[in-house]
Amino acid sequence: MNKAKFKKDFYAIAQFGMLKNGGVSRLAFSPEDLAARQYLIRAMEAEGLVVSMDGVGNIRGKRPGKQDLPPVVMGSHMDTVPSGGHFDGTIGVLGGLAVIRKMNEKKIKTARPVEVMNLSCEESSRFRVGTVGSSVLTGSFPLSRLKKTHDADGISLHEAMTLSGYAPETLETPMLSPGDLYAFIELHIEQGLVLESENNAVGIVTDIAAPTRFKVVIKGQADHSGTTPMSLRKDALTCACELILGVENITANKAGPHTVGTVGFATIEPGAMNVIPGRVELGIDIRDINIGDKEAAVKALMDLMDKIQNKRKLVISREILSHEEPVPLSGKVIQILEKEAMALGIPFQKMISGAGHDAMNMAKITKAGLIFVPSLGGISHNIAEKTSFKDIMTGCELMYRTILQLADQE
Amino acid sequence: MNKAKFKKDFYAIAQFGMLKNGGVSRLAFSPEDLAARQYLIRAMEAEGLVVSMDGVGNIRGKRPGKQDLPPVVMGSHMDTVPSGGHFDGTIGVLGGLAVIRKMNEKKIKTARPVEVMNLSCEESSRFRVGTVGSSVLTGSFPLSRLKKTHDADGISLHEAMTLSGYAPETLETPMLSPGDLYAFIELHIEQGLVLESENNAVGIVTDIAAPTRFKVVIKGQADHSGTTPMSLRKDALTCACELILGVENITANKAGPHTVGTVGFATIEPGAMNVIPGRVELGIDIRDINIGDKEAAVKALMDLMDKIQNKRKLVISREILSHEEPVPLSGKVIQILEKEAMALGIPFQKMISGAGHDAMNMAKITKAGLIFVPSLGGISHNIAEKTSFKDIMTGCELMYRTILQLADQE
Repeated sequence: MNKAKFKKDFYAIAQFGMLKNGGVSRLAFSPEDLAARQYLIRAMEAEGLVVSMDGVGNIRGKRPGKQDLPPVVMGSHMDTVPSGGHFDGTIGVLGGLAVIRKMNEKKIKTARPVEVMNLSCEESSRFRVGTVGSSVLTGSFPLSRLKKTHDADGISLHEAMTLSGYAPETLETPMLSPGDLYAFIELHIEQGLVLESENNAVGIVTDIAAPTRFKVVIKGQADHSGTTPMSLRKDALTCACELILGVENITANKAGPHTVGTVGFATIEPGAMNVIPGRVELGIDIRDINIGDKEAAVKALMDLMDKIQNKRKLVISREILSHEEPVPLSGKVIQILEKEAMALGIPFQKMISGAGHDAMNMAKITKAGLIFVPSLGGISHNIAEKTSFKDIMTGCELMYRTILQLADQE
Repeated sequence: MNKAKFKKDFYAIAQFGMLKNGGVSRLAFSPEDLAARQYLIRAMEAEGLVVSMDGVGNIRGKRPGKQDLPPVVMGSHMDTVPSGGHFDGTIGVLGGLAVIRKMNEKKIKTARPVEVMNLSCEESSRFRVGTVGSSVLTGSFPLSRLKKTHDADGISLHEAMTLSGYAPETLETPMLSPGDLYAFIELHIEQGLVLESENNAVGIVTDIAAPTRFKVVIKGQADHSGTTPMSLRKDALTCACELILGVENITANKAGPHTVGTVGFATIEPGAMNVIPGRVELGIDIRDINIGDKEAAVKALMDLMDKIQNKRKLVISREILSHEEPVPLSGKVIQILEKEAMALGIPFQKMISGAGHDAMNMAKITKAGLIFVPSLGGISHNIAEKTSFKDIMTGCELMYRTILQLADQE
């Protein structure tokens, strides 16, 4: 793989949304995201790819094959969480470009077309819902929700896409049907400690755990902090705290071995030193690779909310944002990845993914695979996120060899 | 009292920062606050008052006396909390103006000058510190802190004052020394349920409970919500929740009968659905009229923070923002208030104030009094805050009679 050219692209993309502390904020459809897309399109064109964009802003760069068959696709995303790192998502897009570059340098002709995809809005940070681009593409995100899903400033996904120059009103869903793609492979950082602790350079993912997510609104009564006796308060924040500690306790101590639960944000109103909080809105994210364990944790959480609500005489309203099942990846792709990893002498392991990825949506319409490379210290969604370029190049080489196998299959 | 003219002023001030839901947001030194000040200055001038302003924006309107003696002063504030009500503070300023108006209508000449004061930044919502105007005036707020105290946008008090057209750099503190004023009376809404439940029209306050306030910062580790096992997390939010529930438990169940404790705001970073919170900043407000009970609650809270910190292996840093002692008000003023309330046949009671007020600072340099009028349902710092105009006029009448007594004392 051409590491120098990969790094040139990587550092160029890193500039879009770079923070003073070295991290990056490149939220979906932000000016920074749009700038990164411009760079990507130019880089795709430089490699001779035929670029196209759909109504939600997914970008496809196509390298024609000898025949006009369904293509083999590599892809991931370039949007980030706020104060995130530079590796999550981006290496899967630029890794795909690096594979194309190697094919060009070696003047390889494949039977099937080979594509690189940048999928829109994978991170849920801005709109509280993730993998939007791949969900719309594969028909699991109803188009009517685009206008109903808003960011913190009240801008809908539909509006953000329109403001970014895309045309969501022209869409029909699903845009891709089974058979339209021959295979999809995503290269991604692990975002966990498994590969590092097992000293492996690559993980071949067999199953992806999908989250169940809630938005919860607690309505109490805003009152003066000095003159309202403790016994007469309806404090929405202390109520929320009981719930947040409940999420921690249920998922850590009372659920399955792989269950995790997180409250990542909470907004408190009116939010002043001397006013008892009258309203709290928060998000709950529960994940598991075992559907039964996840359902049990969700049930325990619902019961807890009822209990807290009755005890504190407040209203806790809940809205399910997503509730998905774990996704198994393609046995055929896993088999080729294993064979090629062994042929290359890469230390690898098969593993599951605790995080959701675009590959889980693509798995609905094609043979999908997911390659992990190690995250230093298991850290991600953080400015300290890091993966060595050596490991990324190893992942790219494995993807290259696997793509060549798939692209020549009838 | 001229109720019609009072209401005209009241509804005029209410427009500055009026919200669609009927509430008001008129934060200290906001454009809305500055507009209200313009109106007040014009209204003061219309009543023949000589208007002056100091470097922190306190506005004084002076009605000259027969002699150039230290004046008798009425005052309060016009800034509000976010999504607050129209009565808190404002009725004390406009009530003072109503008293002046009655004196003018009756062509009363007093020995001492009589003044109305609007004190800057009484609410702590914007800068996390309250009663700034009266604190600077009476020397209990070091001027060096003006540049070190910031709002959520990073604007310092000094900058906000300068941007508002005031000149904090010209200040020397204290601006008022004992003897500079003869007496100070504040008319304010009760913000509690006592007067309503006792069916009294007026409360004569004997002591003011002052708050102890902390800013607390919890530093954890931001990580991916799907790939970080529960056992390896350093979640700043669940840590904060344990602390917030501790504040509730200590002040409700383990402290004195009048102790109250509140966490009114908490900011969570990075604040995304799929990221474990890495940093939480929150404010704690503890109050009591009994200094011993308050100290005991603060001590219990400190011990709890140490315990949580050790258990969760996170750093909880604490900064004391204010730590004040309960303030007794002037026995001489209380005596006159009682005598005049009886003469007027007003149903009244003596009581304490759970909330801090500008009167507690003024008490350091002069004879200070505080008159409460009932809050409907005890609600304040909320759009539903309400006091009847009848009760406000009763409070004004009591203030008028008391001011006349004080203004003719040698």
